[in-house]
Amino acid sequence: MTTLHDPTIRSFASDNYSGVHPEVLAALAAANDGHQIAYGEDLYTERLQHVLARHFGDDAQAFPVFNGTGANVTGLQSMLPRWGAVVAASTAHINVDEGGAPEKVAGIKILNVPTDDGKLTPELVDREAWGWGDEHRAQPLVVSITQSTELGTLYTPDEIRALADHAHARGMRLHLDGARLSNAAAALDLPIRAFTLDAGVDVVSAGGTKNGALAAEAIVVLDPAASAGLPFLRKLNMQLSSKMRFVSAQLIALYEDDLYLRNARHANAMAARLRSAVEAGLADGSIAGVRFSQPTQANGVFAILPDGVADRLRESFRFYDWDASKNEVRWMCSFDTTESDVDAFVAELSRLTRG
Amino acid sequence: MTTLHDPTIRSFASDNYSGVHPEVLAALAAANDGHQIAYGEDLYTERLQHVLARHFGDDAQAFPVFNGTGANVTGLQSMLPRWGAVVAASTAHINVDEGGAPEKVAGIKILNVPTDDGKLTPELVDREAWGWGDEHRAQPLVVSITQSTELGTLYTPDEIRALADHAHARGMRLHLDGARLSNAAAALDLPIRAFTLDAGVDVVSAGGTKNGALAAEAIVVLDPAASAGLPFLRKLNMQLSSKMRFVSAQLIALYEDDLYLRNARHANAMAARLRSAVEAGLADGSIAGVRFSQPTQANGVFAILPDGVADRLRESFRFYDWDASKNEVRWMCSFDTTESDVDAFVAELSRLTRG
Amino acid sequence: MTTLHDPTIRSFASDNYSGVHPEVLAALAAANDGHQIAYGEDLYTERLQHVLARHFGDDAQAFPVFNGTGANVTGLQSMLPRWGAVVAASTAHINVDEGGAPEKVAGIKILNVPTDDGKLTPELVDREAWGWGDEHRAQPLVVSITQSTELGTLYTPDEIRALADHAHARGMRLHLDGARLSNAAAALDLPIRAFTLDAGVDVVSAGGTKNGALAAEAIVVLDPAASAGLPFLRKLNMQLSSKMRFVSAQLIALYEDDLYLRNARHANAMAARLRSAVEAGLADGSIAGVRFSQPTQANGVFAILPDGVADRLRESFRFYDWDASKNEVRWMCSFDTTESDVDAFVAELSRLTRG
Amino acid sequence: MTTLHDPTIRSFASDNYSGVHPEVLAALAAANDGHQIAYGEDLYTERLQHVLARHFGDDAQAFPVFNGTGANVTGLQSMLPRWGAVVAASTAHINVDEGGAPEKVAGIKILNVPTDDGKLTPELVDREAWGWGDEHRAQPLVVSITQSTELGTLYTPDEIRALADHAHARGMRLHLDGARLSNAAAALDLPIRAFTLDAGVDVVSAGGTKNGALAAEAIVVLDPAASAGLPFLRKLNMQLSSKMRFVSAQLIALYEDDLYLRNARHANAMAARLRSAVEAGLADGSIAGVRFSQPTQANGVFAILPDGVADRLRESFRFYDWDASKNEVRWMCSFDTTESDVDAFVAELSRLTRG
Repeated sequence: MTTLHDPTIRSFASDNYSGVHPEVLAALAAANDGHQIAYGEDLYTERLQHVLARHFGDDAQAFPVFNGTGANVTGLQSMLPRWGAVVAASTAHINVDEGGAPEKVAGIKILNVPTDDGKLTPELVDREAWGWGDEHRAQPLVVSITQSTELGTLYTPDEIRALADHAHARGMRLHLDGARLSNAAAALDLPIRAFTLDAGVDVVSAGGTKNGALAAEAIVVLDPAASAGLPFLRKLNMQLSSKMRFVSAQLIALYEDDLYLRNARHANAMAARLRSAVEAGLADGSIAGVRFSQPTQANGVFAILPDGVADRLRESFRFYDWDASKNEVRWMCSFDTTESDVDAFVAELSRLTRG
Repeated sequence: MTTLHDPTIRSFASDNYSGVHPEVLAALAAANDGHQIAYGEDLYTERLQHVLARHFGDDAQAFPVFNGTGANVTGLQSMLPRWGAVVAASTAHINVDEGGAPEKVAGIKILNVPTDDGKLTPELVDREAWGWGDEHRAQPLVVSITQSTELGTLYTPDEIRALADHAHARGMRLHLDGARLSNAAAALDLPIRAFTLDAGVDVVSAGGTKNGALAAEAIVVLDPAASAGLPFLRKLNMQLSSKMRFVSAQLIALYEDDLYLRNARHANAMAARLRSAVEAGLADGSIAGVRFSQPTQANGVFAILPDGVADRLRESFRFYDWDASKNEVRWMCSFDTTESDVDAFVAELSRLTRG
Repeated sequence: MTTLHDPTIRSFASDNYSGVHPEVLAALAAANDGHQIAYGEDLYTERLQHVLARHFGDDAQAFPVFNGTGANVTGLQSMLPRWGAVVAASTAHINVDEGGAPEKVAGIKILNVPTDDGKLTPELVDREAWGWGDEHRAQPLVVSITQSTELGTLYTPDEIRALADHAHARGMRLHLDGARLSNAAAALDLPIRAFTLDAGVDVVSAGGTKNGALAAEAIVVLDPAASAGLPFLRKLNMQLSSKMRFVSAQLIALYEDDLYLRNARHANAMAARLRSAVEAGLADGSIAGVRFSQPTQANGVFAILPDGVADRLRESFRFYDWDASKNEVRWMCSFDTTESDVDAFVAELSRLTRG
Repeated sequence: MTTLHDPTIRSFASDNYSGVHPEVLAALAAANDGHQIAYGEDLYTERLQHVLARHFGDDAQAFPVFNGTGANVTGLQSMLPRWGAVVAASTAHINVDEGGAPEKVAGIKILNVPTDDGKLTPELVDREAWGWGDEHRAQPLVVSITQSTELGTLYTPDEIRALADHAHARGMRLHLDGARLSNAAAALDLPIRAFTLDAGVDVVSAGGTKNGALAAEAIVVLDPAASAGLPFLRKLNMQLSSKMRFVSAQLIALYEDDLYLRNARHANAMAARLRSAVEAGLADGSIAGVRFSQPTQANGVFAILPDGVADRLRESFRFYDWDASKNEVRWMCSFDTTESDVDAFVAELSRLTRG
């Protein structure tokens, strides 16, 4: 098979427009050849347990899966009885971007709460965390947060700890959608465990794909009492890879040393560069009429553009509307975004908005 | 990440114990770098449509997914209303080896029929194909066959055509689980279309993983009228890869030229070598007490061993019991099985049974 | 079996605390004895079709079921593909009071919108009616409204027509939860068809239980093109009564003549009497500190009470908190509420709030 | 509403073609009037607990539901994790007559086993009771039997005890579909507990409808450790009656005194009369060519008729084919079948077969 695309072109559409980091590709080759027991009894999956235990604690149990929706839905399902519900921000990926998989595959009702910045608080959780024991209400037994959030914002470890304490005091569990867990670690400059295990999180969807893997995430159970039946649920949710060694190898490549951090730091830095450059342009007049709708704390930049600019900018660089009714757009940076990508993008934005 | 396993050791346990064919690995690298639109709007997925159209007809629509269970369940779900049922052999992978995913994820009742050799016939289908219009009965609207079967046997194109005609005459559709489609093509020495499109099959699960891919299968809709909603179902069944270019690249590597056939022919040949060697041993007395329980038509050999032999043979070579109550075992060959693997295996079998 | 309860005591908790109207009980006896074909091929179910056609049009198809949740979930499921979603008010019964049955049994995602009065508008619908064709979003294909609403308010026929036109223009269908359909007909003083068939509604859950039946509702399909598979879905959702003649008989008793209207008018009148009496009390000072949180348009009264009054009032009369954080309560009247029930209740409220 | 049917005509089609026993109708009236707390907190549902405890033991917990499919599916679901499967006879109602509700609503895979007489044995259970811990196999965690069976046969208490011991020894639970529980009690001339609680059954679907109720069954949990979440599951499976007092009243009417037994004894006696009369006719030559395909142990007679007789007999009496390919028919008697019904039926059979 020959290369069909122009490998020099990158966009600001999504971190999953990017390809695979060379070290991940090398890991696939290293895990190849010979036979390994299928479905997870291989040496790479065994090694992955140890690798992830360093990030998530010695009791952590990791279940590699194919993708983030699979990790979220299967992890949440393992935390809930059939009558359970999840409290989540209305912007949560599980609520708006998974095609209804939580409801349709796992029968999970999502009790969603509007937020300003994609972040729940104990007070926001309480809007939907009630009615336990009432059979007429799907039972709110899990709080799910995303770190870093779908709006490019971050929870501090203290904020997560407050949510965990709040949830636990009510008999609920805390789930963390960590599709961009690495970006959070990089942004907070803290070990992953500081805002997961040490902050009281029970189950994590640990991301890989958005940060340089091909297709690899892991459900990581931090408190074994918070989850049941994952080996079965992963299979029946069709997330059990036969050649699992290759899924595990990707995650080892990311998490064994510091590749997860290098990639995420770079993506975050590119987003910061983008934001700073636009802010500088606004200050010096080379860019006009652009506002930011969220703080830039990880690898996403959320901005509101003057009328018509988004479409013209998209003639050169692909990215998504976030809320078209407000001209709000999302610009995502990834591990392979370059400084010159950012600079060219800002230059074009300047050209289009200068007047 | 370093290599953890001994890449020189191979077993006869399953074709998915094998790794990735080097040409598939090269395809992953060729598809890498730069940005491609996520979730299937990339150039590789587009190319895959053309590649698979050569095998399945110009109307064929391909939906790459992660694994065989995902392909089967999602494909069948797209062929059925919520009240639908599938007639299948009781040995079908969908009935015995998918953890209940068809029932649990897609609400599909499987009306299973015992067979001698893993193959349905129109007469066998009729044991469960009745009761249309009766709301008390899950409606049998699809027949699902596996080619090559879970018992290592083959349908001829005529046999499949008879099943398709029979199904269609009753308002049913024909699904083909082609996890080992390539082995069938190699064994029959026919183009894939001869026993799919030309034989009246409506939807195929086209395999990749068992024949040298990392994790790649495709739901291929041959008759667009037989399936609905696959883009949505694939997403909500959590089988939509964000970096789909890499799933498609694997399938292109297999199906664009003849890699699918080279790999399958080799696997089949190794199974034939194994069977022939054992038969020769039985003839010349160097092997004793072994019987075969199925014809060897593809890459699997099913045998009945003298008491105690299976466990002793497993001290050297991993393989699975098929029906432990009868000492029946399954030996699978894969694209990377070598002649010396086979010869060493037969030598050990000889040592253990000679007496 | 002897009577265990005091049949003279009535509450203001819910219209389903009431018993069965004597004419409904008589209908059960009239349908009794002899044999009738089970599962709906009986003469009473056939008659019911004609009875309901007078209210819902000649094309209407009625499917009697046991309860309102069954009618709503099964009706909505028949209107939606597996990837469908329903836009509803956040206060809708399907969203808050059915234990997650829509999600868990039917895989329906409910896209809920906050409202002031339990009523959707085209503008409110548009907050969630978007994203068609995007597989990442559960597809909004049905709008569901409740008439009279869970907040005791009413849609005018014009308001429903506007919603129907809005929905249809977007390829969506309109479902009406008519658990209290009769109360709406009585309050509007209009035939049922004026705000269902003639207003563009596609499928109705036609209530019986809350208005004097024992356990009887009907899914009524007004536009046959809007619904598929109900005979099968009713069975597999476990809503198919074997002795269906008795479910149908209840609905015939209500809808054949004017019992539905007599009962609903009475219940509405009792709610109006309650509200008027409290308003009079507030005007003349015999009641203090009570406010109304919703208009009283059907058989429910929503009020905000002074601190502590609700619990003391409940020592004499059972009723529910609506929003305990605001001291908001709901008082429901039913077909069997008497004037003296109302007067005694108001007298007690007066005693407790006078000062 | 007026009577539409001829209440003097009865058939041999099904015990649910019959109406409601007058004492059940009287119980509905006795429970009427005044207000009772909805959804099961009423005095009748409380009384029912005591009534059923006499039959099922002091630990028994009863959950009234609308119908038998609801009782079976919801009861089984409460006994199983999401990855669970049920071993049942292939003729079990849950396998063939519930429209796939177990699979579609509860995600339960049914591992069915062919039997001669509708009865499982430990040996038959073992054909499917294996593979625990293997995530590729839906986990067989419940055995479900029907008493009396769908083939009109009976388990002895010892046979049930053997199944219970066998199941429990393997970590499985025993469920009993007792849609015709009363017929079994009558036929065995034993208290219900002798073949349920005392025989090791864990959860029972206790029938009412087929034995003179209008629409009433109960899930009865005999061992509280065998079931979880029934209050929630009953609601989300749409089996929670708002006016539950009337469901409970029906069951009290049946089970408080001996109505369940009187009705069942009568139905059984009519089946015995039918069988004896046919046997006598065969002996004296007044009936020819009829064979019996099952013993007549409860209220159903299974016979094989000469060609063409079934359809001619059906011109006078409605009944169902059981296996049309073998001219096998099912004749069911119910609580209201009369001696003259039976005699007229036998006379007509004689007329048609005499030659």
